[in-house]
Amino acid sequence: MTEPLRIVPLGGVGEVGRNMTLIEYGDDAIAIDCGLMFPENDMLGIDLVIPDVTYLLDNPDLLKGIFLTHGHEDHIGALPYILPQVSAPLYATQLTRGLIEIKLKEAKLLSKTEINTITTNSVIEIGPFTIEPFHVCHSIPDAVGYAIYTPNGLVVHTGEYKFDQNPADGRLPDFDRLRRYGDEGVLVLLSDSTNAERPGHTPSEQIVSETFDQIFDQAKGRVIVSTFASNISRVQQVINTAMRHNRKLAVVGRSMVDNVKMALALGYLRAPEDMMVHVDDLEDYPDSQIAIVCTGTQGEPTSALVRMANQEHRQVSLKKGDTVILSATAIPGNEELVHRTLNNLFRLGVDVIYQSLMPVHVSGHASQEEQKMMLELVRPTYFIPIQGEYRMLVLHGRLGEAVGIPPENIFVIENGQVIEFEEDIAYLTERVPSGQVLVDGLGVGDVGSVVLRDRHLLSRDGFVVVVMALDEKTGQLIDGPDIISRGFVYVRDSEELIEEAKERVIELLESGKVHRDTAATAIRDSLSEFLYQRTRRAPMIFPMVLEV
Amino acid sequence: MTEPLRIVPLGGVGEVGRNMTLIEYGDDAIAIDCGLMFPENDMLGIDLVIPDVTYLLDNPDLLKGIFLTHGHEDHIGALPYILPQVSAPLYATQLTRGLIEIKLKEAKLLSKTEINTITTNSVIEIGPFTIEPFHVCHSIPDAVGYAIYTPNGLVVHTGEYKFDQNPADGRLPDFDRLRRYGDEGVLVLLSDSTNAERPGHTPSEQIVSETFDQIFDQAKGRVIVSTFASNISRVQQVINTAMRHNRKLAVVGRSMVDNVKMALALGYLRAPEDMMVHVDDLEDYPDSQIAIVCTGTQGEPTSALVRMANQEHRQVSLKKGDTVILSATAIPGNEELVHRTLNNLFRLGVDVIYQSLMPVHVSGHASQEEQKMMLELVRPTYFIPIQGEYRMLVLHGRLGEAVGIPPENIFVIENGQVIEFEEDIAYLTERVPSGQVLVDGLGVGDVGSVVLRDRHLLSRDGFVVVVMALDEKTGQLIDGPDIISRGFVYVRDSEELIEEAKERVIELLESGKVHRDTAATAIRDSLSEFLYQRTRRAPMIFPMVLEV
Repeated sequence: MTEPLRIVPLGGVGEVGRNMTLIEYGDDAIAIDCGLMFPENDMLGIDLVIPDVTYLLDNPDLLKGIFLTHGHEDHIGALPYILPQVSAPLYATQLTRGLIEIKLKEAKLLSKTEINTITTNSVIEIGPFTIEPFHVCHSIPDAVGYAIYTPNGLVVHTGEYKFDQNPADGRLPDFDRLRRYGDEGVLVLLSDSTNAERPGHTPSEQIVSETFDQIFDQAKGRVIVSTFASNISRVQQVINTAMRHNRKLAVVGRSMVDNVKMALALGYLRAPEDMMVHVDDLEDYPDSQIAIVCTGTQGEPTSALVRMANQEHRQVSLKKGDTVILSATAIPGNEELVHRTLNNLFRLGVDVIYQSLMPVHVSGHASQEEQKMMLELVRPTYFIPIQGEYRMLVLHGRLGEAVGIPPENIFVIENGQVIEFEEDIAYLTERVPSGQVLVDGLGVGDVGSVVLRDRHLLSRDGFVVVVMALDEKTGQLIDGPDIISRGFVYVRDSEELIEEAKERVIELLESGKVHRDTAATAIRDSLSEFLYQRTRRAPMIFPMVLEV
Repeated sequence: MTEPLRIVPLGGVGEVGRNMTLIEYGDDAIAIDCGLMFPENDMLGIDLVIPDVTYLLDNPDLLKGIFLTHGHEDHIGALPYILPQVSAPLYATQLTRGLIEIKLKEAKLLSKTEINTITTNSVIEIGPFTIEPFHVCHSIPDAVGYAIYTPNGLVVHTGEYKFDQNPADGRLPDFDRLRRYGDEGVLVLLSDSTNAERPGHTPSEQIVSETFDQIFDQAKGRVIVSTFASNISRVQQVINTAMRHNRKLAVVGRSMVDNVKMALALGYLRAPEDMMVHVDDLEDYPDSQIAIVCTGTQGEPTSALVRMANQEHRQVSLKKGDTVILSATAIPGNEELVHRTLNNLFRLGVDVIYQSLMPVHVSGHASQEEQKMMLELVRPTYFIPIQGEYRMLVLHGRLGEAVGIPPENIFVIENGQVIEFEEDIAYLTERVPSGQVLVDGLGVGDVGSVVLRDRHLLSRDGFVVVVMALDEKTGQLIDGPDIISRGFVYVRDSEELIEEAKERVIELLESGKVHRDTAATAIRDSLSEFLYQRTRRAPMIFPMVLEV
């Protein structure tokens, strides 16, 4: 008798299964990915967000391995936070492993972690599972999807993919492998929904190379290309273009330097030895022979590009004649920062090239026609759209219907929703804890809705603390009230308001109407009303009464 | 002898001259527009942003009139804040006047304000200026640009425009008038740069009508269309479509109800009497005969659509079979809220139609080819791109070059930069105060960089206040230390940390190493180090020492 096969999407901020998904059978489970998400704008003060692994803590012997699809943060970035809680051997391709090792070293976890290097020829057997990584094209080399043979059928997880006929690393999509799985019969496909809103095909990386060529050709001065530190494929395109145009290339920005160094060492980036120079040595070359690759496409305040745009970069001072390329689009939520950076670059008089002006970026994800192609190659019985916000999953699900999958075999689900597959049926079953764990400094999961609500209130109208000492016998005011306030009014210009507030507290205490036990509440209510009346603002108010 | 003509762009958050621009000659000036901007995400707690009119306060008799181009917030919304400081008669078309009156009534300023109704046949003489409003197509009816005859030449200000051959209100662009000004000779053109990043032509409103027809045709249940309350043209399209499909229409959302009522009364919206019904009366009709128009396209938490998406709307409960149209695109900075709203609508199982899926919105602004057409019709000697972020002004400026305006006659400027025009030359001259004045509650301009910085710090890591009473003679600790903290850690789970912090303060005071005068600083430094060590967070720390 077989047991049910269970699929459990665990992580992703508003996204389903992007960061971590479990495949479970009996006493064994493997995880696909272990990534993080960056906080949304209203997660005040939060550094990053990781999947909730309560389910794995509740079932401590379940997890037998973590399989990584590729080396982007949203797929490997939670490892330093999750591994101390849930230990399991990792499986990753060579480049992905290299990127993981940088992280684990920093977190002092490298020596404690078993990492297995896999290739697209590997066949890994773990408990009831036989796992085959297969090659996919994405915006980073060495990306894979996984075919997972289980007692109840074959599960295919696409990872993140597009069908690029001219990828930067020259490795074409593995149509044969996908078709073979389709021929063998696929129980369920979990497929990347990121671009389910985009009709047609995602353009090839080729178009970016062509645009780069055009820009490098026309640029009289230096060319500065900014992209994600993790977009190793784009960096290769910059290297190739710089090479074709006889320019030296310097790498700027810590994360970019680390990644490029590692990828060069492992052979995933190829560049002539004498072409790569240190940024400090650029002054030995004329501007027309210089290119720079750096971070900062999202307008991150401490990134290399933003420092350059603000004329605050220690090593690179932008000037008229320079050309700056933003080879990325704004992640939703980052638009204001990106626009501000663009405006500042324009103010410097440099030539700025971004996506609105020329095709200097293409997505790493399949658009609708490719998503349909994936479904048609794999021909799954069941289909679970993953890696997308809810609306994208719905739209991806509709594409499944369009290519003939019965609607009842398509599962648009949320994180934590378990689906079980028996011999010939599939159904939704329990929900397990899932979703977002907020990381703030050293705290993992300790900042929840209460702290966030307080941060919101403080960010809107600040706070007022009023302190006083009362005689513990008579209740008479001995010292104070003193008032401290921040974020409410500009204190220096508001002395009168603060003095009136103090007087109000004194009057209240001297009125004899206030019982000592409830003095704090009475003071808060009175000040709250007074301050709102006068300013239409509602600071948090904290009376502190010492009895001496 | 003539004096110089001066043009002074005053307002706009990161945008030049969208909100207010002065045309000045000798002792007289007129203003074009008096609008507000909504705060960017990092202007914490700010309600809205208005232009800085210090220059007008410093020259109290200068301003002779405020000419409004159309009734959108970013062109009229600052009137209630500016008029009490700078009084001048207003000039507005009938619909714009209607929208202004709603605002001034609320602010109890209506009876104190002189408003002159103008039409596209008006000729207004003020001091040295002769002003002709001319019709432009925009996403609100009754929008105008201004031709301003001055002793030094003709100034043309486009307002916000596009060249729509099928506008919702049927009024075509006034090419003849623009050509006439071109023939007469235009000294300087101030033209709308909003869409300078967009190639081609902005599609006609016609395409929205066609899409609406298609959607209404297929919808079996209710159709809910959300758009901006100020997009009166779009509301007319909804009315027309509902009429064609025999649906009753209810208006939901306070600002939408106010605007529609006024526009119907003035005849700028036309609807058969019996078609408009109150939302509470919708239950008298089958779903297939119901349409609703409401606000909420930007994901505003208190808007009608967001309440509906969250199943919290008092009057409209969405259900499967309903169709919801988002007839707008996200303003940069609002993406996360819009996406959240879309996801929640999809979760309810309603059919959601938004711009990624069907053309349910078109911009109200000219794209590049129209911008060039404007330049070619008006053929100005000088060109000032206005109404855009800096990068858009640069791009618009390049279009000016492309149609043959000499680069030295194109002024890409920032707010506050005065340009003077003499008989045959133009040049940049002084800078005057300009830009952003933040409004927070009743405070206009009192929240500046200090308060905002504190709000930022509080929003990231909260605060800690530590209070104690010392004996004023001996310096001995009499009471406390007590600690209050918000936004830093979840206090209930952090008792140990708080206790340790208190002990640290006691040790410090009892160590004898701390002088009484510097106790506060010593406590702050010690706690700051301790708390950062333990949490990697940096709350604002305030020691308060009472001496009794």
